[in-house]
Amino acid sequence: MTRQTKPRQIKLGAFLPGGGQHVAAWRHPDHPVDGATSFEFHKQLAQTAERGLFDAYFLADGLAVSFGGGTEGGNAKVAGFEPVTLFSALAPLTKNLGFIATASTTYEEPYNTARKFASLDLISGGRAGWNVVTTATEAAAQNFNLDQQLPHAARYRRAQEHVEVVKALWDSFEDDAFIRDKESGVFYDTAKVHDTDHVGEHFKVKGPLNVPRSSQGHPVIVQAGQSEDGRRLAAATAEVIFTAHQHLDTAQEFYRDIKARAVAAGRNPDHVLVMPGVSPFVGRTEAEAREKYDRITSYILEEDGIALLNGLTGGTLDLRGHDLDGPLPPVPATEGMKSRQALIRQIADENGFTIRQLYQWVASARGHYTVIGTPVQIADTLQEWFENEAADGFNILPPWFPTALDDFVDLVIPELQHRGLFRTAYEGTTLRDNLGLPVPVNRHSAGHRTVQAAE
Amino acid sequence: MTRQTKPRQIKLGAFLPGGGQHVAAWRHPDHPVDGATSFEFHKQLAQTAERGLFDAYFLADGLAVSFGGGTEGGNAKVAGFEPVTLFSALAPLTKNLGFIATASTTYEEPYNTARKFASLDLISGGRAGWNVVTTATEAAAQNFNLDQQLPHAARYRRAQEHVEVVKALWDSFEDDAFIRDKESGVFYDTAKVHDTDHVGEHFKVKGPLNVPRSSQGHPVIVQAGQSEDGRRLAAATAEVIFTAHQHLDTAQEFYRDIKARAVAAGRNPDHVLVMPGVSPFVGRTEAEAREKYDRITSYILEEDGIALLNGLTGGTLDLRGHDLDGPLPPVPATEGMKSRQALIRQIADENGFTIRQLYQWVASARGHYTVIGTPVQIADTLQEWFENEAADGFNILPPWFPTALDDFVDLVIPELQHRGLFRTAYEGTTLRDNLGLPVPVNRHSAGHRTVQAAE
Repeated sequence: MTRQTKPRQIKLGAFLPGGGQHVAAWRHPDHPVDGATSFEFHKQLAQTAERGLFDAYFLADGLAVSFGGGTEGGNAKVAGFEPVTLFSALAPLTKNLGFIATASTTYEEPYNTARKFASLDLISGGRAGWNVVTTATEAAAQNFNLDQQLPHAARYRRAQEHVEVVKALWDSFEDDAFIRDKESGVFYDTAKVHDTDHVGEHFKVKGPLNVPRSSQGHPVIVQAGQSEDGRRLAAATAEVIFTAHQHLDTAQEFYRDIKARAVAAGRNPDHVLVMPGVSPFVGRTEAEAREKYDRITSYILEEDGIALLNGLTGGTLDLRGHDLDGPLPPVPATEGMKSRQALIRQIADENGFTIRQLYQWVASARGHYTVIGTPVQIADTLQEWFENEAADGFNILPPWFPTALDDFVDLVIPELQHRGLFRTAYEGTTLRDNLGLPVPVNRHSAGHRTVQAAE
Repeated sequence: MTRQTKPRQIKLGAFLPGGGQHVAAWRHPDHPVDGATSFEFHKQLAQTAERGLFDAYFLADGLAVSFGGGTEGGNAKVAGFEPVTLFSALAPLTKNLGFIATASTTYEEPYNTARKFASLDLISGGRAGWNVVTTATEAAAQNFNLDQQLPHAARYRRAQEHVEVVKALWDSFEDDAFIRDKESGVFYDTAKVHDTDHVGEHFKVKGPLNVPRSSQGHPVIVQAGQSEDGRRLAAATAEVIFTAHQHLDTAQEFYRDIKARAVAAGRNPDHVLVMPGVSPFVGRTEAEAREKYDRITSYILEEDGIALLNGLTGGTLDLRGHDLDGPLPPVPATEGMKSRQALIRQIADENGFTIRQLYQWVASARGHYTVIGTPVQIADTLQEWFENEAADGFNILPPWFPTALDDFVDLVIPELQHRGLFRTAYEGTTLRDNLGLPVPVNRHSAGHRTVQAAE
């Protein structure tokens, strides 16, 4: 097999929740107040992301109402769409854009997870990705027959097994299982349809799945765990890893660690893409960029800032009554998202932030890297991270929509293209084509052993 | 409130699984062999149904691979799309057509069910319906951690509670809960967001749901149970009831029973629509219709006919080795779909069918009423049932696609319109608008008690 060597280029995801990214996004004059629940607005965002040649549209998810504004979009996130259902509706309205939906392993059965993602993958012609998460809130647990959430380690054990079962189910039909011969009446080859026969700690699943594979094999597996449990899961199963860093050096440490773990797990490190989050404030001048930052900051209500910090640190930090212009008090340990708690503490300490300064800084992207500057300055940063073992690409979190997304597409993308760092046309029609990830060979197919050996 | 009196008209659902309805549909020259897994084909079917002014596109569902052809579309149904995901993709490509997706209460959590249907309802602008089923096969049970399926009565108890919880979750946000005032920063009124606080035999769900209501309030509840347990559930919760009958008199018995049960449950019987299934073979002459029937019958393989009868009678009837031109042997009782087992027995007995004649007859629609004739003859039958307390409308199951669907749309619909029995334009944009069903008042809203009293 001959292989054309192509220069390595940046991969880009777009985080575009209709309610906005910044806690006060919905109060921005450009942002529609009903963005979170407007299908037309999500359609506009998807089409803009495709115009910008983004690899994928990404959406987070939660299994409970997020009260008090402690999440992306703040209070505007109180209600919205289930991401797979939404992406399915957006798929036929786009041609190349990938769709990475978050879905929890904690409160769904693998057979249902496998089906909905396989369906989205088939409907979109191979453009689906699954962001594998565990669900870490008491509120969600109480919507699923429990009084309190499962411990961190237990959630990750379940997640690991859940992903294994889903991937096995996705291989139920070999690609040449379908004969479909009208003359003989033979529709499929029973020898090419396979049971899963999984029996594990959490699940017993016989299979097969009743949805076939798409043209990209199966959805791209995405993961965002930063903790030890999370990194182990990511290195074992993820093809794209979302991550949050404030500095080049911690991003590099994470990048090298993940690549080393992937190699140790017998995987090709080029097939594990590390993509830190970046929240861009783009101005034609530095002053204009700074004005944009100051403007949206002015829309943050104190109570929403307090709720945001409470949410990001695990839901047990009540700052009401504290002096907001004083330092952040100690954060109680919880069974919630451990890595995010540590990151918030770190940002407060190393910048010497007051409570107010802290929530203002994390309001745009909850701990993801915030860059404020001209297209050239922002491209410089992305290039530095990309060329120095900190990133294979980035997840772009424009603070509000549509204008902050338009700014990135119209000003930063051309600068990256000009430097040869970003595509000028989609490489293909599937998410794997564009991310440069291989089509996974079906574990049951004759070619499976050969391919494994060649990797 | 003034009310315009409108002549009562027939409501029509379209059962359009891409693999076809008849067991041998995929072998028909007009039917694409890959229809079951082709999104483009489903799009064509949806657009044809909308051209025909159907109320809704309906899809069944199963939680295991259907081996051996014992279902709609026969072996072509071995793999396909999850219905809610598929309908979501079809929604933006249509304007008025409703989408009624089947989803099981047996192996999903109510919070997840409520979310995906509420999302579809919002995306489609109020065009979603949920066909509530219990899942009755060993194969499905074994995909969800069990060795064998739950008993019939236990499934229905769980179904009843599941529907109650879902409906409660759908009322989490009152319609005027969203303030969305940029100036003050108030996004929603906390007093108008409600917990569910359900604690029951199967589920404990605190709520609220994180998806708001659509313009039709919530998805239309559809049900198809024929057994005592099924009728009780239908009368208590369903707004549309699918049913299968071979004769006017049994259809009338069912119709009157359901309406009486609805009244006994304190409901308006006009808000419980009874819609028997009809499988039409339409010809410009009676002979042409009969030729169409004979032609597709010729495509049935003996083994598929045997598998079909096994599937319809609960999965324990092995007819291999029997004389196919002899009578149907006794059918063993199972915990599967009891009513369908009885119907198949009845068809065999009252027609004196051999095994072969029986599977040929039920191959087109698995026990639904088969009509073979001219547009005038078919319209006569529908009119007779509609005007004599047997039906408020019909679910049309064209045996193969697209031509058998086109025949119904191009030949039968105009005949019904000519008689004033069917709409010539959609009444509105929501499924409830077109079905003539009221928007359910939110249980938490101030107007709730008044409306209940007025009904």
